[in-house]
Amino acid sequence: MSGHLLASLDDVRGAARRIRGLVNRTPLLPDDGLSAETGAEVRLKCESLQQAGSFKARGACNFVAQLSEEELARGVVTYSSGNHAQAVAYAAGRRGARAVVVMPTTAPQIKIDGARRLGATVEFAGTTSEYRRVRAEEMAEAEGFVTVPPFDHRRIIAGQGTVALEAHEDWPVLDLLLVPIGGGGLASGCGAALRALKPEAKVIGVEPEGAPTMRRALDAGAPVTLEDVDTVADGLAPTRAGDLTHAHASAFLDDVVLVPDEAIQAAAAHLLQRRKLVVEYSGAATVAALRSEQLDIRDRSVCAVLSGGNLDRSFLAEMAAGNGSP
Amino acid sequence: MSGHLLASLDDVRGAARRIRGLVNRTPLLPDDGLSAETGAEVRLKCESLQQAGSFKARGACNFVAQLSEEELARGVVTYSSGNHAQAVAYAAGRRGARAVVVMPTTAPQIKIDGARRLGATVEFAGTTSEYRRVRAEEMAEAEGFVTVPPFDHRRIIAGQGTVALEAHEDWPVLDLLLVPIGGGGLASGCGAALRALKPEAKVIGVEPEGAPTMRRALDAGAPVTLEDVDTVADGLAPTRAGDLTHAHASAFLDDVVLVPDEAIQAAAAHLLQRRKLVVEYSGAATVAALRSEQLDIRDRSVCAVLSGGNLDRSFLAEMAAGNGSP
Repeated sequence: MSGHLLASLDDVRGAARRIRGLVNRTPLLPDDGLSAETGAEVRLKCESLQQAGSFKARGACNFVAQLSEEELARGVVTYSSGNHAQAVAYAAGRRGARAVVVMPTTAPQIKIDGARRLGATVEFAGTTSEYRRVRAEEMAEAEGFVTVPPFDHRRIIAGQGTVALEAHEDWPVLDLLLVPIGGGGLASGCGAALRALKPEAKVIGVEPEGAPTMRRALDAGAPVTLEDVDTVADGLAPTRAGDLTHAHASAFLDDVVLVPDEAIQAAAAHLLQRRKLVVEYSGAATVAALRSEQLDIRDRSVCAVLSGGNLDRSFLAEMAAGNGSP
Repeated sequence: MSGHLLASLDDVRGAARRIRGLVNRTPLLPDDGLSAETGAEVRLKCESLQQAGSFKARGACNFVAQLSEEELARGVVTYSSGNHAQAVAYAAGRRGARAVVVMPTTAPQIKIDGARRLGATVEFAGTTSEYRRVRAEEMAEAEGFVTVPPFDHRRIIAGQGTVALEAHEDWPVLDLLLVPIGGGGLASGCGAALRALKPEAKVIGVEPEGAPTMRRALDAGAPVTLEDVDTVADGLAPTRAGDLTHAHASAFLDDVVLVPDEAIQAAAAHLLQRRKLVVEYSGAATVAALRSEQLDIRDRSVCAVLSGGNLDRSFLAEMAAGNGSP
């Protein structure tokens, strides 16, 4: 993949200007408990408190902001395990455009309800990212919708990169950024931005052991389709990295580490009970990585991105009752 | 009560300087759902994300910051339903001082555990604020501890007022601030600060119907001791307003409104499920007031202070399971 296709810091800055007022500047909270536990200074970038409940609002707003009136009149379609669907519903709604979202039949109810509440029409197709992508593309073809890709597009990547822009602005000493990887849009944008802003800072991606899509792509030198993924972190379970996100990961990430589901669940319980934050499993993976022995973070200034808060009610109840106790 | 005893904007600004770096600058989050529901523009000041889980860290840090080395060596004692206890434990810990906290026998386990985790020795005395105050004063007498009062002290009030200072700085159009009232320290400090910063803005206190301490004090023209209080909002259940907080409320509050427990519980459920915030019942009272028909807030710029996040695990589990559904 040639370099000129990669998102640049200028792209990310342009996105930041475009989405101002549409998305929240999310807080960067200290976590004294995690700091004491790890010997690092830890701050949490709370995208769980973002519009539509995840960082996905950034990329979706950046994409929709660049549509013409004619495109907006046709409406948009997307495919997503849930958070990008809600983000596109939100972004389209803010511009008065119709949105159709294709979600897996196994999507968490909270994400289905969220997309509908934000005004989208929800369609269901299969259980993997490939099924829903095909359906969305068929609908775009048949009905003239503009497709808003979930991650493998430079405008989406640039929007997600504004997370790193804000974290660096609020906390310039930041020298390690931990980002979860599903399709890789967040890691791509954050990597592009932070590498340019502060070349000596590290950016490390985190995936569940049961869905190591980007880890495998980096090891193989190209995206590979996983036959089977198995994780509680529904947002981190695409079966294949994007071509463009793989290229960004190759260029900008220092490492991709894997964490087991049990560690993700314990991290989400810590965030709920100690930090008073409802964070979905996908969003807690970075905290699981922090606490693992895999990373040498002592004395570093570490920002963990909590990517979303759309935790299904049944999981929330189970966690609140003390399972996966911190 | 003569005017010169009241906290001033200068006191609050002094507190802000003193506690910088010790407390979090908490986020002021938009709530589009509540805005649509009420016709106001609503933002939430998230003290649930404060150090030790509530705004109380502000007053406690401002108080402890002004102790001499000799006083710190003696240690501090306080009495509290729980949040102030944790705040004093935190503030003392940051200065290496010993802290003893006297809590009711009915204190939520999460607040007992929190105070201990922050290094305090926990003592128990009775179920009402009077019992624990007497015990703390006996201990101060016997052992030489410095007493950190929970609300009725100018340094505490000035610290709590930094909530309004930040809200106004982050959102200058703010024209109505809603604050919960337990002993009244938060309302006093916020009233003093906002009245000076923006005289035309309103400050309204919120109490549970089952513990209308300040409402009764204002109606009677002096603090009165309630014979019985009954509310799920354990932090808003002192039986008597302070002399100094009553004087501030008389001078600076535009009104004090009462909300039923059911509305408080529904508000906490909304914050958990839609806003992804764990907010204790006391902290959700302002959102209950927002949603009631008592206030004319249409077209106003309203900030509701979410005063704390220390919700006991059993309540959290119940709420997560859908009781008090938003």
